[in-house]
Amino acid sequence: MTFDLVANDPRTKARAGVVHTDHGPIETPIFMPVGTAGTVKAVQQRDLKDDIQAQIILGNTYHLYLRPGLEVLSKAGGLHQFNGWDRPILTDSGGYQVYSLSGTRKIKEEGVKFRSHIDGSQHLFSPEGVMDIQRTIGADIIMAFDECTPWPCEYSYAARSLDMTHRWLKRCIQRFDSTEGHYGYSQTLFPIVQGSTFKDLRVKSAEFIAEQGREGNAIGGLSVGEPAELMYEMTELVCDILPKDKPRYLMGVGTPANILENIALGVDMFDCVMPTRNARNGMLFTTQGIMNIANKKWADDFTPIDEELGGYVSTFYSRSYVRHLFHSKEMLGPQIASIHNLTFYLWLVKQAREQILAGTFREWKEKMVKQVMTRL
Amino acid sequence: MTFDLVANDPRTKARAGVVHTDHGPIETPIFMPVGTAGTVKAVQQRDLKDDIQAQIILGNTYHLYLRPGLEVLSKAGGLHQFNGWDRPILTDSGGYQVYSLSGTRKIKEEGVKFRSHIDGSQHLFSPEGVMDIQRTIGADIIMAFDECTPWPCEYSYAARSLDMTHRWLKRCIQRFDSTEGHYGYSQTLFPIVQGSTFKDLRVKSAEFIAEQGREGNAIGGLSVGEPAELMYEMTELVCDILPKDKPRYLMGVGTPANILENIALGVDMFDCVMPTRNARNGMLFTTQGIMNIANKKWADDFTPIDEELGGYVSTFYSRSYVRHLFHSKEMLGPQIASIHNLTFYLWLVKQAREQILAGTFREWKEKMVKQVMTRL
Repeated sequence: MTFDLVANDPRTKARAGVVHTDHGPIETPIFMPVGTAGTVKAVQQRDLKDDIQAQIILGNTYHLYLRPGLEVLSKAGGLHQFNGWDRPILTDSGGYQVYSLSGTRKIKEEGVKFRSHIDGSQHLFSPEGVMDIQRTIGADIIMAFDECTPWPCEYSYAARSLDMTHRWLKRCIQRFDSTEGHYGYSQTLFPIVQGSTFKDLRVKSAEFIAEQGREGNAIGGLSVGEPAELMYEMTELVCDILPKDKPRYLMGVGTPANILENIALGVDMFDCVMPTRNARNGMLFTTQGIMNIANKKWADDFTPIDEELGGYVSTFYSRSYVRHLFHSKEMLGPQIASIHNLTFYLWLVKQAREQILAGTFREWKEKMVKQVMTRL
Repeated sequence: MTFDLVANDPRTKARAGVVHTDHGPIETPIFMPVGTAGTVKAVQQRDLKDDIQAQIILGNTYHLYLRPGLEVLSKAGGLHQFNGWDRPILTDSGGYQVYSLSGTRKIKEEGVKFRSHIDGSQHLFSPEGVMDIQRTIGADIIMAFDECTPWPCEYSYAARSLDMTHRWLKRCIQRFDSTEGHYGYSQTLFPIVQGSTFKDLRVKSAEFIAEQGREGNAIGGLSVGEPAELMYEMTELVCDILPKDKPRYLMGVGTPANILENIALGVDMFDCVMPTRNARNGMLFTTQGIMNIANKKWADDFTPIDEELGGYVSTFYSRSYVRHLFHSKEMLGPQIASIHNLTFYLWLVKQAREQILAGTFREWKEKMVKQVMTRL
């Protein structure tokens, strides 16, 4: 994997670049739809490519490890072959799901023992094991195994956790660098900056991560309940330390405004379940603002969901029709909303990139942050 | 609406024809996907057209009357405008849903009083009212209001019900013929043959229906639990009486074998929820037979769902992947299965038509009935 830094915005820290992988290029800043269990929920692979124009999607190691399991994924020739997505894939380390989904789990130096949320079976995720699992899944970008601390978090816990995350990272790197991809294309390992919302821990972690000299770096443990301003403060602090010539990935972020603000601070890559999860609840992100499409006010609005956005679902289906689908609990409602929201998120980062290239990002960002967060 | 009878199979009673409507032609024999509440469940309109190649879809009067309701449909300019389907639409009369979904309903000469299964509100469906409702929905083909008797059914009940259905038909015709379409294109009314599984009642009804001289005729009250042989006996009896120069629509049928056997008896049009409902439960109809895709045996079968069928979902997604989606309760599973099954049903009737035109229908039908019903 390589990264070309194409442009720096003159008045913010925003950047435009291109990440090159064996499964093709990724133009940054980029939003990566989350394909939890090998599927971006409710979205056909073809629509993900042609309509949404996704350049890279995520897979969740925890979910894929449990189902379909490594044996099937290995026999398939990796996740790309299994789900038919031939552009880049990034997998998380599974840590976040272990902490959030698994009722009983024990974090020790060795790794994390947990029970499957599906059948209660017992498993161990260790730094080495998670590298091996991600080798088998076959993502282009794989993530280090870390502890994502909750928020708020005691300083002493965050400090101890960070040290362990750093020790785990060394083990991840050792395992990753001593193994090879299974499927003939190259994979790369991104380390993750942690440290909760404590400045000194974030600085310490960012410096440690930067020293590892990996091909890209991630920022984790944010957007877990802290105020947005605190998130931006941490992001800026960390981005200023992380190498400029490597892509920076802010994990699990966020609202359209969060994404624009973090782009302005130097973040290149984002992922979040918000566009798809909120879509399933009838919340549509549009170029003009946010709609609760189940609301009665849309019952006889026969205009398209979002004419300006373009794309099939956003211009073909009327607000009235989609409102009816949600009101009638028809599957097609969440399907349309998921494609629409992802199309919007990809449109948003593409627009941001064009504004950065044109040197007009700051003014545009200030206007858009207000516009896209307006409640319609 | 007009009907061109293009070919008669030399060795069965199968026919090939073309129904012409203001929303375009329908090549018969045809299968019509069921779009209950203005949506063929889980299927995008574009995929219905481009992948499934549906030529006409159904809407359910009962569901559409309750949600989104006539006010919205009227403001939208009819169902075609509302859901964006610009090819022909057929609506049922709502009777079947009133009998099956509404807990409390009273059938009287005037019509049927029922309570909404959604909010318990009270409504009356009368022959005249149902004509008006279907005028407002704006389907190209609308159905007479009838009583669909359950099976088994006492002879005396079936006989009395049939007489009422015939009286209702006269009222439907009177209302329909004294009103006009709301949206500038023409609509046509199909009467429905009833009579349970009693030969004399079916003959009486078919003769009565034939006498009305409508542009097309339907056969109702079959595929409600009776043995298939009894259904075929009734279909043949009725088809022999109904005019040859009008399309014949067998309502609510059926399995792939049912469809092929009934084509052989002279039926031109079919609808059924089976391909979509069974899809949502993981039952796939393929050119080679029937698969329960959730079965463990498909876990590491990386071949496409149905290479021979063709089409995006059937050739792009592997059995293993779709099995994983069902196993993981991912929405994409039912979505893929719904498109696949409908593609198969439309393929089946298209193949039947080609075999009729080639004069080879009978041999092909005998082979296919066995092949498509094989459990894989």
